[in-house]
Amino acid sequence: MAPQTKEEKLALINENLEEVLDPQIIEEVLDSGRNVKIYWGTATTGRPHCGYFVPATKIAQFLAAGCEVTILLADIHAFLDNLKAPLELVNQRAKYYEFIITSMLKAVGVRTEQLQFIYGSSYQKNADYVMDVYRLSSVVSEHDAKRAGAETVKQSNNAPLSGLLYPILQILDEEYLKVDVQFGGRDQRKLFVAAKDWLPKLGYKERAHLINPMVPGLHGGKMSSSDEGKRQNISFPFEVKIDLLDPPEVITKKIRKAEAAPRVTEGNGLLAFVEYVLLPTSALLGQKEFRVDRHEQEPLIYTDAKKLYEDYANEVLTPQMLKPALSKALIELTAPIRAAFEASAEWQEVTTKAYPPPEEKKKKVKKVKNKGTHYPVRPKDAQGQDGVPAEEQQEQQPAQSQEAGPEEKAA
Amino acid sequence: MAPQTKEEKLALINENLEEVLDPQIIEEVLDSGRNVKIYWGTATTGRPHCGYFVPATKIAQFLAAGCEVTILLADIHAFLDNLKAPLELVNQRAKYYEFIITSMLKAVGVRTEQLQFIYGSSYQKNADYVMDVYRLSSVVSEHDAKRAGAETVKQSNNAPLSGLLYPILQILDEEYLKVDVQFGGRDQRKLFVAAKDWLPKLGYKERAHLINPMVPGLHGGKMSSSDEGKRQNISFPFEVKIDLLDPPEVITKKIRKAEAAPRVTEGNGLLAFVEYVLLPTSALLGQKEFRVDRHEQEPLIYTDAKKLYEDYANEVLTPQMLKPALSKALIELTAPIRAAFEASAEWQEVTTKAYPPPEEKKKKVKKVKNKGTHYPVRPKDAQGQDGVPAEEQQEQQPAQSQEAGPEEKAA
Repeated sequence: MAPQTKEEKLALINENLEEVLDPQIIEEVLDSGRNVKIYWGTATTGRPHCGYFVPATKIAQFLAAGCEVTILLADIHAFLDNLKAPLELVNQRAKYYEFIITSMLKAVGVRTEQLQFIYGSSYQKNADYVMDVYRLSSVVSEHDAKRAGAETVKQSNNAPLSGLLYPILQILDEEYLKVDVQFGGRDQRKLFVAAKDWLPKLGYKERAHLINPMVPGLHGGKMSSSDEGKRQNISFPFEVKIDLLDPPEVITKKIRKAEAAPRVTEGNGLLAFVEYVLLPTSALLGQKEFRVDRHEQEPLIYTDAKKLYEDYANEVLTPQMLKPALSKALIELTAPIRAAFEASAEWQEVTTKAYPPPEEKKKKVKKVKNKGTHYPVRPKDAQGQDGVPAEEQQEQQPAQSQEAGPEEKAA
Repeated sequence: MAPQTKEEKLALINENLEEVLDPQIIEEVLDSGRNVKIYWGTATTGRPHCGYFVPATKIAQFLAAGCEVTILLADIHAFLDNLKAPLELVNQRAKYYEFIITSMLKAVGVRTEQLQFIYGSSYQKNADYVMDVYRLSSVVSEHDAKRAGAETVKQSNNAPLSGLLYPILQILDEEYLKVDVQFGGRDQRKLFVAAKDWLPKLGYKERAHLINPMVPGLHGGKMSSSDEGKRQNISFPFEVKIDLLDPPEVITKKIRKAEAAPRVTEGNGLLAFVEYVLLPTSALLGQKEFRVDRHEQEPLIYTDAKKLYEDYANEVLTPQMLKPALSKALIELTAPIRAAFEASAEWQEVTTKAYPPPEEKKKKVKKVKNKGTHYPVRPKDAQGQDGVPAEEQQEQQPAQSQEAGPEEKAA
């Protein structure tokens, strides 16, 4: 049942959020009878994995609440992130993002008529936008730009200047995408606060901001805002990345390997995924529940996160019970995505172009190693990326393409 | 006689310069039989005064040596310098710059067929340029951008971010203006060195750089690169600014008031003006000399700066002799400019629009003073600008318009 009243809509928009800045802006739009316009930006550097279900779940809720959602595919940012990657590759990746995010939203049962994808390159090179980049740069201090990007941009004297430019662009995007609201993870908070202050300097109106919490990953570490997290406003629930197209047996295997100490709820990525993805999406699909089958016992059925955490803390729910239940739910959730991929020759072609097969990469890695056994720096790939041990990465080649390896950068 | 050989051309191009970076680039162009293409940029913030004769003299020499000269009227920079000034005013000022610089060059007898003016706004908002701004920002560190602008851009944590962007733009201009060489004052040296390093990062070729010395002003202080000096690559020989349209009697009065201790040659703006403007422009006009008439004695005729400095150090040439001679020469030099102004209704109209009459300003100043006698901060105008005592500024209203007073900024 789609929410009808203002209160129902607000409840769905705000569910599970950590913070809402200037909620009155959203209320005023609802009062006026107009649809709330929300934007979320993602740099198309890598390849969306299951962690993207965290923002996608919120986007699904926004759509279900009647909002108009714009997803900014920040292809210019992605291109700049690694100038060595040709623009053609970045464009193919942006197309892949469009395919997979649409599929994710359809998989949780929301209609996507009020969803639009906009490529950054379609307006971030336009004269009026650029003039505003220049204008905003002249009324914002270096110090303030640095503060705004403190948690999303690498901060050092040797960091590229573009890092100070990104907050300028991201804030102007609110105006140029003509939205009421920007949505993002908590790592974007300083940027959102700056947006409130900066846009009025150019005579533009202040927007509301919806802030998602940072959701813990499978290894329990706090989520990094670097890597492809930056400019994607995203939280990663899995450090062992589960690709959205991984077949069921790979999903099962990766979740089996996930770190989850008994009784420990804090920083538990498995529980967080249930709370922030599985419960809300099951609600969108018609029945809010997370089901844990047990050996020779009644299944545990959770309809809210509180009980789930309690049971886990008391060892009513153990990692051994939780993992297969989570695997099963995730396999079900992703089944329509795999099916859509199998059915679309176009999407398959885009995928091959966007993420060249691992064979080619391996060949190039060998070349680097040929520098001799005394070569003091081990190639980055051999050390693993993002804290993921190298042998696990072998199992998830597609996810590995999310970051250009050193051999690709040298090409 | 126009120089014909490569050596003659090089001698004229290099005359009085402090330094030439990568002279072989210029020689190679001359060897190829092509005209050397040189660019000089000026932000159209203020109003060109006689100090502009220092770069204009070099530009005249470049033209006389057969170079193609592009003058970049950096109107976007000027607009950003004071966002309160409407773009319309900045555009009128850019037109004024075009009129007066053309007149200055004609006044020293050079043909201006190989001179072109380009407005920054005509290409600095184009998609390809902007993409390169983004690209260059991602391969240049904040530290390097800061170092490049160290002497041309205000350096502080609270300085606007645009200050870090300007070096990026100025360096890209070399590529987009399709030149072989950039010309500027010594305050631009760090930026020029950065240009050599940065352009190849984007696959563009390195340019040569011609560096003018910083020429002392009338008060003997070292020249500031702040104020409208920034991005204008300009040296100021006069701190008491003599407007290029000042009538003869005003020129005489201002020069009479100029500071010039007997025997002191160092930091002597009067001698410097003879050396860097009057001697070279007299050569362009056909006879290289600076003539000092004396009471009941033969005139002193100088054909090079060395003898001039010697005579001054030995008091053969005194300030009392030098000042009227300099006034006479400057009045002669600027006569064609005044005549051209008188003859052009269009230029006069542009001038009125570009520099609104002082009456309006005075009225507004009064308003500020009305805040009461206990108002602790004296309005900036009352304290004088650029070290110029307030009473002297009263005499040079047009020059005063070079900087927007606080009342204009508040408008």
